[in-house]
Formats: sequence, C-alpha cells, structure tokens
Amino acid sequence: MKVLVIGGRGVIGSAVVQLLSAQHQVLVGGRHGGEVIVDMTDPASIEAMYQAHPDLDAVVVAAGHVPFKPLSQLSESDWLGGLNHKLMGQVRLVQIGARYLKPGAVFVLTSGLLEREHINGGSCASVVNAGLAAFVRSAAQELWGQARVNLVSPGVVAEDERGSAAFAGFTSISREQLAQRYLRAISQPLTGKVLEAFAEVTR
Amino acid sequence: MKVLVIGGRGVIGSAVVQLLSAQHQVLVGGRHGGEVIVDMTDPASIEAMYQAHPDLDAVVVAAGHVPFKPLSQLSESDWLGGLNHKLMGQVRLVQIGARYLKPGAVFVLTSGLLEREHINGGSCASVVNAGLAAFVRSAAQELWGQARVNLVSPGVVAEDERGSAAFAGFTSISREQLAQRYLRAISQPLTGKVLEAFAEVTR
Repeated sequence: MKVLVIGGRGVIGSAVVQLLSAQHQVLVGGRHGGEVIVDMTDPASIEAMYQAHPDLDAVVVAAGHVPFKPLSQLSESDWLGGLNHKLMGQVRLVQIGARYLKPGAVFVLTSGLLEREHINGGSCASVVNAGLAAFVRSAAQELWGQARVNLVSPGVVAEDERGSAAFAGFTSISREQLAQRYLRAISQPLTGKVLEAFAEVTR
Repeated sequence: MKVLVIGGRGVIGSAVVQLLSAQHQVLVGGRHGGEVIVDMTDPASIEAMYQAHPDLDAVVVAAGHVPFKPLSQLSESDWLGGLNHKLMGQVRLVQIGARYLKPGAVFVLTSGLLEREHINGGSCASVVNAGLAAFVRSAAQELWGQARVNLVSPGVVAEDERGSAAFAGFTSISREQLAQRYLRAISQPLTGKVLEAFAEVTR
C-alpha cells in the first residue's frame, strides 16, 4: 500500500512511519516539512495535495492541535482554534480525500483518551476528540463501499513529556504499542471503528 | 427555582416550559422573542443576559441549529455554522454563566441521538452532539462544587415532523416524556450526566 502519514515526524507519527515502512510505501506529510506538504486548516492546500497524490491507498493523520486551559480561561479563539485544527482539519482530509482517492482507500484519524476521560484544562480536547469519534462512525456509514474510516484514540504516550502533571494518575502506553493500532486500522477490514489505546475507563 | 428555558417556544422547549411551570418560576428565552432575549452565537449578548438575570437557579437550553446534508455536500460554512450555533452556543452559555450565576446553579443542555446513532446527512449533527456530551462531562468535573451541568439527548420527537424520512426506522418519543428528562436533570443531584431519551442503541 501507498500510505501518507500526516504528522509523520511527531512523537506518534514517527513511530507509525517506522512500523508501517516494514510492509508499505510510506510518505511523510506535514505542514512545514516532509515529502508531502499540506495545511489541514486550508481546504485548497488539501485539494492540491490529493490532486498531486491521487494514488494513495491510505491516509493516516497523527496531527492536530488543541488548547489546554481551565474552562474559565478558554477564549473564543482558543475554542475555534482547536475546532478548526484538530477536528475540522481531520474532517476535511476525509471529506476532500473521498472525492479524489480511488475506491477502497482507508483513512485513520487520531483523537485521544480525553474523549472518554476528563482532566482539568482538557475540555476543548474532550469536545474535539468526542466529535472525531462521532465523525468517524458517521462518515464510515456514508462512505460505505467507497472508503473506510477509522480512529485511533491514544492514551498518554510514555515518550511524550508534555502534560505529564496534567495527566497525574493515568498510565502510559509506548509509541510502539500505539503504532500497532494504526497498522491494525489499515490492515484489518474495519470501518467506523475507534481503536482505543489506553487502559483506563472510569465508570 | 427560577429557571430560564432558552428555545422555550420550540417543539421541545415549549413542553419543558409547560412541565416545569407547575413547580418553578419559568422564564422563556429566545433570540427574537420571549421574556429574555439572547443570541447564543454572541458572547456579548450572553454576558448582558446573565448580568440582567444573575438570580437564575437553572438554565435549560433547547435551541441550536445544525445543517443536515450528505457528507459530500457539507461546505466549510455549513460545518462552522453548526459548530458555532448548537455546540459553541451551548458551551458559551455554560462557560459565561458559571461566572455570573450563584453557586449551585444547574445547566441542562440538549444534544440528540445522532451522538450515538448515525443517519445519512447527519454527520455534522453527530459531531456536534458527541462534542456536547464530552463537554458536559468535562465541564461538570471542572465546575464541581460551583455549578451542575447535565445533558438531555432526545430521540426523534413524535410531534416533530421535520426529518421523518431521514429517520426511517427510528422510534419516536413524546414531548411529554422528553420533558421529564429535563425536570430530572434539574431536580435530581446529578452532574456530568447524559440523560438519553431514545430507545435504540445499535451494537
């Protein structure tokens, strides 16, 4: 398969690139560097990217920013920034990609455990990640027979030092374990699935 | 209790107003009419509303628009409109309200069964409704001891003729049954809860 990994130089993306490269042809995509340049916030940039690479079999997105701030401090622009980048950026990559890629292409998006578990300062991430899960289920139904759409929901990544205090009491997962979820989301005949990569679910 | 019902003239809101009025002092709010005028898309309008009514004990939101279109036809402005109105409108009402209302106030927001079940043309509604559920859980944690935040997720409303073809195969709920969920979300010591008012969950 010819696989594009957007965010392929990041903590998660680089592990995905390493794992997938053993079996597949992998292109690294990003906003500023890599083999494929694309800006997820810009529909025209996404269109141009797919026009240049219509032969992709799979698109993995391991990119997307959200603000982390207490609810009382989240501004309008914080909210809109998170919604526009991590949520709508991934929505656009599927919606536009479905028009350009050949039937059978698979999209694998990235959310995060704050979809289901919540921390102080994480309300925008929770909204974005839950929105992504619903989008993947819904888009998979609409794109049935045309494209597959799955989601990996990472827990705290062991090698990622950011936010370790904010995630006190959460267990971590290695990048290698996490990368396997992306391989599975591409390789197995799944669509509309959320592959969770974390241990904790509070009831 | 002094309860504001935003969207209190709508299909759902009017049933909520009728039920709550038996026990509580109810104000009807809306964008163009009612006793309290507020525009959910405008933070300044929301601030002015809470400044004029700082003595509210409960705020029910039964308002919020999302576009219904096939994924291939949803434009950037469709998406941003749905995110800005139904999702961010309700987020703003909680976030700003938490600054103005006295401790112990309760917010009850409205999502919909497309959070969990999906129909063609409903992907924006699915994203918005799932985002609202995550927001309510997250905000309830951050506002613990200060305000309660719950969500009612209505199924297809029997008296609502819109979209009956799009929801083929779904069972409906009466407005009277649905209104009870809002009463419960206010009256019982709940926070961070999603009160589902539909029969179907596909596994």
